[in-house]
Amino acid sequence: MSVLSNGPVLIRGTGLLGASIGLGLRAAGHHVLLSDPSGTAEAIAQDIGAGTRLTEDSPHPGVVVVAAPPEATATEVAAALITYPRAVVLDIASVKAQILQQLLAQTGDAQAPAAAGLTRGDLTRYVGTHPMAGREKSGPVAARGELFTSMPWVICPATDPETAQQLSSEEAISTAVDLARTLGASVHRMDPVKHDESVALISHLPQVAASLVASRLQDAPASALALAGNGLRDVTRIAASDPGLWVQILSANSRPLVEILYELRADVERLIGTLEDPTAPGGQADIAQLISEGNSGVARVPGKHGAPPQSFAVVTVIVDDRPGQIAAVLNDVEKAGVNVEDLRMEHSAGHQVGMVEVSVLPGRRDELAQALTDMGWKVVLS
Amino acid sequence: MSVLSNGPVLIRGTGLLGASIGLGLRAAGHHVLLSDPSGTAEAIAQDIGAGTRLTEDSPHPGVVVVAAPPEATATEVAAALITYPRAVVLDIASVKAQILQQLLAQTGDAQAPAAAGLTRGDLTRYVGTHPMAGREKSGPVAARGELFTSMPWVICPATDPETAQQLSSEEAISTAVDLARTLGASVHRMDPVKHDESVALISHLPQVAASLVASRLQDAPASALALAGNGLRDVTRIAASDPGLWVQILSANSRPLVEILYELRADVERLIGTLEDPTAPGGQADIAQLISEGNSGVARVPGKHGAPPQSFAVVTVIVDDRPGQIAAVLNDVEKAGVNVEDLRMEHSAGHQVGMVEVSVLPGRRDELAQALTDMGWKVVLS
Repeated sequence: MSVLSNGPVLIRGTGLLGASIGLGLRAAGHHVLLSDPSGTAEAIAQDIGAGTRLTEDSPHPGVVVVAAPPEATATEVAAALITYPRAVVLDIASVKAQILQQLLAQTGDAQAPAAAGLTRGDLTRYVGTHPMAGREKSGPVAARGELFTSMPWVICPATDPETAQQLSSEEAISTAVDLARTLGASVHRMDPVKHDESVALISHLPQVAASLVASRLQDAPASALALAGNGLRDVTRIAASDPGLWVQILSANSRPLVEILYELRADVERLIGTLEDPTAPGGQADIAQLISEGNSGVARVPGKHGAPPQSFAVVTVIVDDRPGQIAAVLNDVEKAGVNVEDLRMEHSAGHQVGMVEVSVLPGRRDELAQALTDMGWKVVLS
Repeated sequence: MSVLSNGPVLIRGTGLLGASIGLGLRAAGHHVLLSDPSGTAEAIAQDIGAGTRLTEDSPHPGVVVVAAPPEATATEVAAALITYPRAVVLDIASVKAQILQQLLAQTGDAQAPAAAGLTRGDLTRYVGTHPMAGREKSGPVAARGELFTSMPWVICPATDPETAQQLSSEEAISTAVDLARTLGASVHRMDPVKHDESVALISHLPQVAASLVASRLQDAPASALALAGNGLRDVTRIAASDPGLWVQILSANSRPLVEILYELRADVERLIGTLEDPTAPGGQADIAQLISEGNSGVARVPGKHGAPPQSFAVVTVIVDDRPGQIAAVLNDVEKAGVNVEDLRMEHSAGHQVGMVEVSVLPGRRDELAQALTDMGWKVVLS
């Protein structure tokens, strides 16, 4: 496939994502070269098997994957396009429009290249991409070839914002698609501006909301936190994200995000006005409207396999907190011949008894509940 | 125990919580009477075994549990205190201070009872409680005796807001504690005002935030929603809550909640100001501060058994989406002799491959990863 046909893949930037791409490509039998401003990071990436460190003797890459921090990405892409005049150059930053603008700003027209030596023509070999994986997780995450398995990978062909003319060549685009598919990701092709608007809504807004809620907990009394349930845990989970990374992401996507925050602020203002005088006419209607609009919105969030959450029925099983209990439940679910669509554990602080929530197709719910009950489990339908 | 010793338990209001309390008490061998303004709801509750419908021939209850909507609770409590002059009367509404105020407003002093006939003295038999269970879940939830298993149940003895003198008798309080423990809940004793401040923070704020984020998704393009991951799913999950109920909860707890929303609004304003000009001095520091404060806050949210989320290590296992795969993983985890502290499935829309995230004690992580790898699983440490 084209990823291979033009020579090795050079990964420029061997952090979590760069090293993970290297591991995944190596596992698929590709020749991977590694390069990082930090010799240490580069050496570690080679040690874990993500590829071979780039040397003067290395063959020229057919593909360069720029896996640098968002701020440094445009510069690295431009450098790669100039250094490797026949290579396809991809980047994997979480925001796309600003990077394209920065690249266009560095190009003169085809006749008179800018000082940097980058021309519009070079951009035919550039494709912006965004693998949506791993990054919002808390704590240091080890690089892993399977990081992209079943995750969306957005491919954003470069287009001229003024003429809307596509700059990326179809060959470069198919190279990006091949790379994403090789790593097990699901490809979504999208315009850079549309991509940024999309992630502002489905990724950056939730991050901001989680951080806003979590930051209110800094000085909360322990007696209040002791009452925390899965609701609070769910809403704040991604608040454990890396500040250094998110500063770059939110700054680079400020325009679409701030538009959404204007709407959110208006809702907050209306809610505050209502709560300041809950007895005022229309006040309760405002609250009901906010919650109802939330109902409509959450109903549109795809669950597993793109199905809305409502499309699964939940069978809750009470288990002791002893080793093997959950496995035992799932064995019996399997005996019942019902597939597990999703799985959650419910528990609250200080308890040795838990609930396993098994999501199944609605049509299978009652037979599963009956079967598990017959097998002696405490079953709860919800 | 005192719940039993004074005669049957009358449950006034046979919705989800009332009927669940009935089922749980019946399962524990208690005599339960049921009463609801809706004859249908009352009949259904009796049919599912939550208790016996109240008739003129029913024995007088020793305990009355008012399980009415928050708005109707104070009136129902007052009526029960007057109708059953020897019974302990509990309520289970999600907000406590306002209900106590409404009750106090109905009492004259002990010498000269108000028109309603309720005296301060009657309040010695009243205890406000709040079982934190089930209600924030999406969709119609069937009543279940195990609803309160391992969940917090807050007991709020009535106190005079002016004199801070306790009004509830110790006997009434121990009756409330016995009832909560009988249903498997964990008892937290708290002042009504402190309770309301606590739930504003750990329950009402997350609900509002989830609804604010989810409401932004109402008109989002499907192409954007197709990129949704667990981050968005987690943040918006509780946005599926019942508007009718939450109007009452948020209105009744408006003062503590609005104080928190003032702080949230200030953070949103600062973030908007920064995003309107991301290059302004100090702008990026503002974003970093918001995310960092979120880090500090979320680190304080208790996980299972009150432990902070960080205290578990996660071993991620790649599985095909075939029946029995998850059970097979957990069997092998059991074979490895490691206890599962928490469990999540990771998946994104449109995919047949998933990841099972197994949380274990950090000290067991590496041996489990090794054992599972030896058993042939694709294992990922994170």
